[in-house]
Amino acid sequence: MTLADQPPAAALVFQTLLAHGPLTRAEVGRRTGLSPGAVTKVATPLLADGWIAELGRPAVERSSGRPATLIAVRPERARFAGVKVTGDELIGVLADLTAQPLATARAPLGSRDVGTVVLAIARLVAALRAEAGAEQDGAVHSVGVTISGDVDGQTGTVQFSPFLDWRRVPLAQLVETATGTPTVIENDVRALTVAEQWFGAGVGLSSFALVTVGAGIGCGISIGGRVVSGAHGVSGEVGHLPVGGSERVCTCGNTGCVEAVASSHAITEQARQAAGEPALTIDDAVRLAHGGDPAVRAVFARAGHALGLALASVANLIGPERIIISGEGASSYDLYEDQIRQTFAAHAFGAAADCDLVVRPLPFEEWARGGAAVAAQRLFAPVK
Amino acid sequence: MTLADQPPAAALVFQTLLAHGPLTRAEVGRRTGLSPGAVTKVATPLLADGWIAELGRPAVERSSGRPATLIAVRPERARFAGVKVTGDELIGVLADLTAQPLATARAPLGSRDVGTVVLAIARLVAALRAEAGAEQDGAVHSVGVTISGDVDGQTGTVQFSPFLDWRRVPLAQLVETATGTPTVIENDVRALTVAEQWFGAGVGLSSFALVTVGAGIGCGISIGGRVVSGAHGVSGEVGHLPVGGSERVCTCGNTGCVEAVASSHAITEQARQAAGEPALTIDDAVRLAHGGDPAVRAVFARAGHALGLALASVANLIGPERIIISGEGASSYDLYEDQIRQTFAAHAFGAAADCDLVVRPLPFEEWARGGAAVAAQRLFAPVK
Repeated sequence: MTLADQPPAAALVFQTLLAHGPLTRAEVGRRTGLSPGAVTKVATPLLADGWIAELGRPAVERSSGRPATLIAVRPERARFAGVKVTGDELIGVLADLTAQPLATARAPLGSRDVGTVVLAIARLVAALRAEAGAEQDGAVHSVGVTISGDVDGQTGTVQFSPFLDWRRVPLAQLVETATGTPTVIENDVRALTVAEQWFGAGVGLSSFALVTVGAGIGCGISIGGRVVSGAHGVSGEVGHLPVGGSERVCTCGNTGCVEAVASSHAITEQARQAAGEPALTIDDAVRLAHGGDPAVRAVFARAGHALGLALASVANLIGPERIIISGEGASSYDLYEDQIRQTFAAHAFGAAADCDLVVRPLPFEEWARGGAAVAAQRLFAPVK
Repeated sequence: MTLADQPPAAALVFQTLLAHGPLTRAEVGRRTGLSPGAVTKVATPLLADGWIAELGRPAVERSSGRPATLIAVRPERARFAGVKVTGDELIGVLADLTAQPLATARAPLGSRDVGTVVLAIARLVAALRAEAGAEQDGAVHSVGVTISGDVDGQTGTVQFSPFLDWRRVPLAQLVETATGTPTVIENDVRALTVAEQWFGAGVGLSSFALVTVGAGIGCGISIGGRVVSGAHGVSGEVGHLPVGGSERVCTCGNTGCVEAVASSHAITEQARQAAGEPALTIDDAVRLAHGGDPAVRAVFARAGHALGLALASVANLIGPERIIISGEGASSYDLYEDQIRQTFAAHAFGAAADCDLVVRPLPFEEWARGGAAVAAQRLFAPVK
């Protein structure tokens, strides 16, 4: 049996157990809208094949007096390797079926050449297997590789990755050949959104957006338990929302983009100009701002204003329950938080301002875990 | 039997037949992902209770030689009244189960007082019943009233309608009492989006947005067959995306909103200033622009630029397959089409620019039909 052969209701039951932990069949029925009979019917083959298990201890007594048995996902039933590719480093995690990390590892990238990166991914996956004592074949169900840019998860092709300067790279197939393990790929922000939806700050929400601020500014959108992928592969491009002024030109060639004033590169450039120090780094800029330098603080405030407009745009269009703010930029969030919240409150329309803004530092290991979550998700939605 | 008691798969089968017309059971299975057995199981009670019917004529012969019977929704099984409320007029339609109009009517509003409007709605519904020969009790299943503003369809309350200056009006209950017929209410743009999704330019699309340009600028978003409602009741507020300059103040108090330069009111104000004629109407502005007046043409171009930025924001965030542009403003679309398309193409990020822009004039009778569609939709998702 493979999970992909199961009916849609089985995926619903399985994902509900993944997100919520052990539940009684009645509780699964309540959360999925399935009848008790339907829950039992789809749970039976999942139990038989070891994807879920009945827990030994009975739950609280029901009014009828019969104890209700809890059912739960068996985390050890399958393992997944997740790898996040950055411009100069790989970050890997080996995780169980509930995306709990069993081992983590990092590896520097000597070059951004496709062959070099694919080989480095294969070595990292082998190291993760070894560390977790999972060297034998089949012990890792699949690999999920995440990467920033325009990634077509259906065909396994990186259409365009600006940071690696890759175009039309059939990465899934290359990694599959190098590792001998089925591989899926996904845009890194969307993968992190899947992980947040299943296991993080998005659990149980009808909708949320995850905005990542760093070298680029990305966004994953989850509505009704599904991450929005965009009909043409593009979605969540908050970095290119046209909210800004006309002074700075974005990497995309336009003026007015959020990224043109709020990416770490844009902040560094503006801070260099403000401080009159052409060799200033982003860390220097953060230090100067924390030290009270008014010109550099103004650079962060301006970035905060653009981000606040971007978050208000997301809230006005989608009306999410929550917006999670993360990425490398979240570590210096104190420098623009006031401005973000003030601008957001001013431009969110009516009740859209009730959207909860949450800052959540998510280290790159969490992004790698997103790769494992995407691989696990494909158990039910195999690549066509 | 009520449809609300049926399992979720029944809603899926029924809505697939509503959107696509007569299909074989096998074709329904292919489109819904349900097994042939599941389709037959949920179709049986729908057939027994007259919601769907087998068509007499067999479809094309299958390879096995046995003819496959077509099943289809029975349009006459239920009737719905849809009413669109504007600031000075009611537009009503009586429609069958497939939202095909059986009768239409309009009624002027003497006042925007809640009691007056409710009474006028009840009279309009009675006139529609009479016109369609459906006077007896039960001949109209339910009424769907649509209205611009913050409308909570779940509780049946108009939270805020700027055009009518209503706050917290329990409209569904008031209309239900006045008509003696179950009533649902919905935001007018969302209702029109439901109608487009089921019966219009959104049929069969994985996602689309409907942007309406007129007295206000609204947007309905459909993703995966569901209209996005927003966790706090707000969504699709493209009119308040902060894309503009700082010269004009919006009705919401901010600067930079799309509505501040592109609503019909904003265009009229700017055209008055440009032409130096303080009594100019929107029709005068359109006439002057068509006549070649450069200052008034520039007002429309500026509105087109703001609309292009708004459409690019929708495309960058959601990545819809199509954006449908409608509303009263669509009738003078030629005056800003070039600018809309040019700005959209410049600011849509990467493949998001592949989104199809379609202009579709939808008279107010279509908006009223949206109310009938929302009422029909509640057959399967009753108000809690």
